[in-house]
Amino acid sequence: MKFARFTINGEKYTGVVIDDVIREIQGDMFGEWEYTGKIFFKHEVKFLAPLEPNQIIGIGANYVPQKEDLPDRLPEIPVFFFKPTSSVIGPEEEIVIPKGVDQVKFESELAVVIGKEAKNVPESDVLDYVFGYTIGNDVTAPQFFHQDGHWTLGKAFDTFTPLGPVIETKLDPFNVNVKARLNGVEKQNSPTAFMIIPICKMISYLTNIMTLKPGDVVLTGSPIGAEFVRAGDTIECEIEEIGTLRNTFAAAKECTKIG
Amino acid sequence: MKFARFTINGEKYTGVVIDDVIREIQGDMFGEWEYTGKIFFKHEVKFLAPLEPNQIIGIGANYVPQKEDLPDRLPEIPVFFFKPTSSVIGPEEEIVIPKGVDQVKFESELAVVIGKEAKNVPESDVLDYVFGYTIGNDVTAPQFFHQDGHWTLGKAFDTFTPLGPVIETKLDPFNVNVKARLNGVEKQNSPTAFMIIPICKMISYLTNIMTLKPGDVVLTGSPIGAEFVRAGDTIECEIEEIGTLRNTFAAAKECTKIG
Repeated sequence: MKFARFTINGEKYTGVVIDDVIREIQGDMFGEWEYTGKIFFKHEVKFLAPLEPNQIIGIGANYVPQKEDLPDRLPEIPVFFFKPTSSVIGPEEEIVIPKGVDQVKFESELAVVIGKEAKNVPESDVLDYVFGYTIGNDVTAPQFFHQDGHWTLGKAFDTFTPLGPVIETKLDPFNVNVKARLNGVEKQNSPTAFMIIPICKMISYLTNIMTLKPGDVVLTGSPIGAEFVRAGDTIECEIEEIGTLRNTFAAAKECTKIG
Repeated sequence: MKFARFTINGEKYTGVVIDDVIREIQGDMFGEWEYTGKIFFKHEVKFLAPLEPNQIIGIGANYVPQKEDLPDRLPEIPVFFFKPTSSVIGPEEEIVIPKGVDQVKFESELAVVIGKEAKNVPESDVLDYVFGYTIGNDVTAPQFFHQDGHWTLGKAFDTFTPLGPVIETKLDPFNVNVKARLNGVEKQNSPTAFMIIPICKMISYLTNIMTLKPGDVVLTGSPIGAEFVRAGDTIECEIEEIGTLRNTFAAAKECTKIG
C-alpha cells in the first residue's frame, strides 16, 4: 500500500495511491484511519513529503562498493546523526544551496518509517515496528562538518532532507536497489545488501539506546557514488518499488550571513 | 511568568505557577491561552517536564573557567548536536544508567525555549523569538561517543534530558548563574557570562542554518565542573531565578544488550 500526502487548490490531504488515482483517507496513518470516499487523480495534485517526521536519524558511511568488501566485524559504535525536521521538503521542491556554502552533495537513501513505539527490540522483531519505506535524500554540506567530527550543521540546513514520493508498506527492504541520477546520468545504484550495518541490526541497536516513536524516520545510509552538485542540477533518487524522488538544486535568493 | 506542566490523579495539566499555587491554563502556551479557573497547590502535584520539546539542540564545550579565559576569536563552526525528544524526563524522575554503560556525567545548563518560528534572525533580535528559559541536564555517556567525534549516541539514551521545573518567561539570561550540586555538594556554579558563544550569537547562527520552531529547546552548554556519577547519586541543577531540577540516577533494571 502506498501512502502519500499531497496538495491541491491550497488544501493538504493524505491518501492511498492506487495506479493513477489517490483515495483520500482521514485519521492516523499509523493507527486508525478510513477512506473518506474522495478520489483525486495523481496528475492533478502536487505530492508533499509523505509524512511530517517525528524525528530523523541517519547512519553514516554504511555502504561498501561491492559485496566482497563487507567487513567481517561490524564497528562497535556506528556513526548515527540526527537531522532536524525543519529540513524536510517534498518531491519537486527546490533544494536551496545557502549563500556561503560552496559544496553540496546528494545522498540517495532507503528511509525506514517507524510505525510503533519501539524499545529494546531484538533484530528478529524489527520489521514488526516498521510502518513502511520511502526515499530520502540526505543532502549534505561537508564544509559545515566540525573539524572534530560533528556532522550536525552540515546536514541541518533547511530543504536538506527531501522525502518521498510515497511510503510503501509492502516492500522487501533486503531486495531493492538504491539509485540516484544526476541530470539524467546514473551516479548511485547499489542493492541494500551492500549495507555494512543491515537494517534490522541498525534499528535494533537504536532501540537499545532510545525509544523510537511512530513517525520517526531512519535514513539507512547512501551507496557509493554521491557527488557534489551545483545550482540548476536535478537529482532523482530512485527505488523502483517506491518511486522517484526528484528535486532541483537552486542558489539561495536571500543573503544569509553564517558565522 | 512561570509555566509548568504537572500531573495529579493521573491527569496532566498545564498552568502558571504563582507562589504556592498553580492556575490551570488551556490553549497554546506559545500562542493563545486562557485561565480555566481551576487552581492547584504546588505541594499536591507532580511536576512534569515543562514542555514536550519539538526538537532539542545542544552546543558543546561552551564555558570557560573564568572570564579572562574567553577567547579573542570565536570558533568558525561551533559544535552543535541534537538530542532526541524521547530522552526528556521531568523533575524527580529517575535518570536510568543503562546496562553496559560505565560512565555517565551530569551537565547543568540554561535551556532556551523558542516561542516563534525563527529564520535568519540577527543577534539583536534573538530575544524576540525566545519564549522563556528552563533548566536542562544534558546527561552524557562519553563511552558512546564515536571515535571520529560524533556525540549522538552518548547523549541520546532515554531519560538523558531532564528538563524543568518551570519555564520562566521573565529572566535576564545574561545575569544568572548555572549551578549543579551532586549529593548536596556544589560542583558547578558559573555565570552565563562565561559562555564562549553567547546566547544571541548562538541562536542567530542556528537560525541562519535552520528554521527554529516554537517548542524547540536550545541547551546553551554546561559550566566547568561536570563529573561522573553512580546509581543512587542525586543531582540538583539550579538556576535560582528558575528553580531546581532534581533527579536521582538509577541502574537499569532490565538487561539491554548494546551492540
